[in-house]
Amino acid sequence: MTFTIQDVLIAADDAYTTVDVQVVDGKIAAIAPDLEVIGTAFNGTNKLLLPGFFNAHTHSSEMWQRGIMSAFPLELWLAELYDFAPLDTEKVYLSALGTAVETLLSGGTSVVDHLVLIPELELETIATAVRAYKEVGIRAFIAPLIQDESMTAGIPSGESAKTHEPYFRSTSATLAIIEEATRQFHRPDEGVYILVAPTGIQLCTDALFEGCIELSDRYNLCRHSHLLETKAQEKLAQEKYGCTAVEHLKRIGYLSDRTTLAHCVWLNDADIDIMAETQSTVVHNPLSNLRLGSGIAPILKYRQAGVNVTFGCDGASSNDSQDLLEAIKIGSILHNVTDSDYQHWITPQQAVEMASLGGAKGLNLADKLGSLTVGKQADLVLYDLTHLSLLPRTDPIGLLVLGRPHNVVDSAWVNGKQIVANGKVTTINVDELRQELFNRSQWETKRISESVAQIEAHYRTIMGL
Amino acid sequence: MTFTIQDVLIAADDAYTTVDVQVVDGKIAAIAPDLEVIGTAFNGTNKLLLPGFFNAHTHSSEMWQRGIMSAFPLELWLAELYDFAPLDTEKVYLSALGTAVETLLSGGTSVVDHLVLIPELELETIATAVRAYKEVGIRAFIAPLIQDESMTAGIPSGESAKTHEPYFRSTSATLAIIEEATRQFHRPDEGVYILVAPTGIQLCTDALFEGCIELSDRYNLCRHSHLLETKAQEKLAQEKYGCTAVEHLKRIGYLSDRTTLAHCVWLNDADIDIMAETQSTVVHNPLSNLRLGSGIAPILKYRQAGVNVTFGCDGASSNDSQDLLEAIKIGSILHNVTDSDYQHWITPQQAVEMASLGGAKGLNLADKLGSLTVGKQADLVLYDLTHLSLLPRTDPIGLLVLGRPHNVVDSAWVNGKQIVANGKVTTINVDELRQELFNRSQWETKRISESVAQIEAHYRTIMGL
Repeated sequence: MTFTIQDVLIAADDAYTTVDVQVVDGKIAAIAPDLEVIGTAFNGTNKLLLPGFFNAHTHSSEMWQRGIMSAFPLELWLAELYDFAPLDTEKVYLSALGTAVETLLSGGTSVVDHLVLIPELELETIATAVRAYKEVGIRAFIAPLIQDESMTAGIPSGESAKTHEPYFRSTSATLAIIEEATRQFHRPDEGVYILVAPTGIQLCTDALFEGCIELSDRYNLCRHSHLLETKAQEKLAQEKYGCTAVEHLKRIGYLSDRTTLAHCVWLNDADIDIMAETQSTVVHNPLSNLRLGSGIAPILKYRQAGVNVTFGCDGASSNDSQDLLEAIKIGSILHNVTDSDYQHWITPQQAVEMASLGGAKGLNLADKLGSLTVGKQADLVLYDLTHLSLLPRTDPIGLLVLGRPHNVVDSAWVNGKQIVANGKVTTINVDELRQELFNRSQWETKRISESVAQIEAHYRTIMGL
Repeated sequence: MTFTIQDVLIAADDAYTTVDVQVVDGKIAAIAPDLEVIGTAFNGTNKLLLPGFFNAHTHSSEMWQRGIMSAFPLELWLAELYDFAPLDTEKVYLSALGTAVETLLSGGTSVVDHLVLIPELELETIATAVRAYKEVGIRAFIAPLIQDESMTAGIPSGESAKTHEPYFRSTSATLAIIEEATRQFHRPDEGVYILVAPTGIQLCTDALFEGCIELSDRYNLCRHSHLLETKAQEKLAQEKYGCTAVEHLKRIGYLSDRTTLAHCVWLNDADIDIMAETQSTVVHNPLSNLRLGSGIAPILKYRQAGVNVTFGCDGASSNDSQDLLEAIKIGSILHNVTDSDYQHWITPQQAVEMASLGGAKGLNLADKLGSLTVGKQADLVLYDLTHLSLLPRTDPIGLLVLGRPHNVVDSAWVNGKQIVANGKVTTINVDELRQELFNRSQWETKRISESVAQIEAHYRTIMGL
């Protein structure tokens, strides 16, 4: 927890400078040239040091279905996903490990896992994810995914009023699970946080949102949700509330400076103003937005309006990876086609700040994380600038964000504890993990989803296809 | 040149099958289970065999400026690029090696290098690239980038007629260089091809295009150009010809079944019909189209119209990598946001065919390359399916195309010669290459481009910024 990185490149305004960085008891103690070596010495020559990034939205257990999900929009894709979702905690454990490893090896030191809960094993699912993330040592924000309406309620009904099966678990029972999870697992000092995380307006009643707000206030928990990922959800909000989803969430008090909202593709200009006013954070998931055809989130507009934006990989079934550098790259350059004035485009330096400080702000930790600042926690990543994918030498951050680097994370520390060294995760046996993932799966091709068969015709009608 | 891959997965319709593959004298001789081992035996267990992909448009020497180019649209970006372009053949050599290595390690066995020529050293530049690609052993389509108008002619003039500096080299001298390059280096049997490659309508006279057509017909050369990459070029075509660029290129006879056209972002529906009718090929470069804000090429429309489409990385200064799997992934999923009917979306299996057979078609080699077919040349890539980025096991091609695989190319062969083994390029010393790239470069930040300063105000006016 106490060490000194010597002769390392760090970004300083629009340039780079070579410094030493002292970390004492898990905190950054000094950043300057020619410091005394305290604790272990690390050679930073030809390496770049950055604050760890946030993988600010994912669903770890989707790793089991990556590569095989059909080319569907969200509503049908979800139906297929749930038909084949893993239902044992051992699989949850392995995919949480895999998510942590891929995040770490692409520059992330924090992960927000919007965790899909196994029915009847909700607390066990949460406990399993906590165990996996603690073993790896990544900073873990566990956001148990809850809802209190059944899946078909998430698709607009159109002209005809539709009734839906009631959800299998009551709103109060769901809230009780989150409260119990908070008591058992919410340990910020140990790098494990529980979030309230209703999945979104499409499958949650106001009672569930209000219960989450109450828990958030009482236990000082951050809030997380999906928001307006698809055009269908925009329609649904109008059907359900007679106003936009953002107006409704503001009215019930869900938006705040510790609320992170994944996607935010279908917001209008007034909604964007509300996001700024409430200091809510947008988590941009560019890969899944493309893969599912959800649309291009108006990220340049958010930035111009002063809305905080950070990046997520989203679950590995809609991405189909957990490579955070990929999400940062595509999440930066994608928007250049939406605004012909290049002066508005996101630069690599801005992208790095969005991925680090942007994530910290959204999780109400900007005073403790997200930048190389004396006094902040040492969540740090050291990149090897001699890898072919970062050569020839030009602008290190430009290469990192705009290139396609791989195998470039030399070391990573969370809270001052080293968990990646020489490019390898040191806390778990990754070869064993690979073997387990291999053994518990099989090569397969198309599967038939019964749920999709049930809802596809209705979906196509409603969406005018 | 003669070997047998045993027990390897190959794609068969919508499923996979395990077979042996015999290669004799550089050609695929048999594909079936339980074949006799001829020549060297390779263990294909837990591996996927695919035809090699085509990196169907790049500019190798841009590698020297990757990571550092400003966030500019093409016209300004080009001005900055040329202000700092490398002017020695040793750099051209190293970046061609680097381009070949990155292409190979991401599944490509062919590269189309739209090669920027050093003024007064044109044939030397071509000779250098030929030498580099032959050393690596990748199949090389060298398309010397030529023009006969000066850079400022590439920006629409707007209301006021503008005159431009004459280009430093005459049209006939330029054509003579290409003819000489053809005589010296065009050796299809050795895997080296020269293409005629006027950069595009924005900087070329009809005389240059017509001279290229004549050379193409006389020497049986393929044709390559940029086409309508930006909205500015669409305007320019109207100014220059009073019709679309595609209508003009058809009229002068440049479009054909051996013409590949990079970008094709700003074509209208009638243009798309012309592309289909002339059997021209679109080379889709999704990363650079995003990075430069050029727009989203209407790839789903091309496919519906029956236009052949394949993928390119484009030069590494506008990408900023040569990872072909990344280009294939983004080039597939990007279009889901342009058409809400998911039945039109590109599947991973279709993307693989576009990247392999699509490239072969565009280069007039569909009878010899682009698929696992008995009698075709053995340009093959063997993927290791036990790498973490391809686990857990689901659909191998889905994982490869939609995931973010790295370090997964176990082996690659071009014309039956193995040039990647155990994940390493075997023909050159990649560590030495890294060292050379490192030594000949330095970390730097923003540079000041004088050319950009000269044209930026005009560009902003013309584009209404």
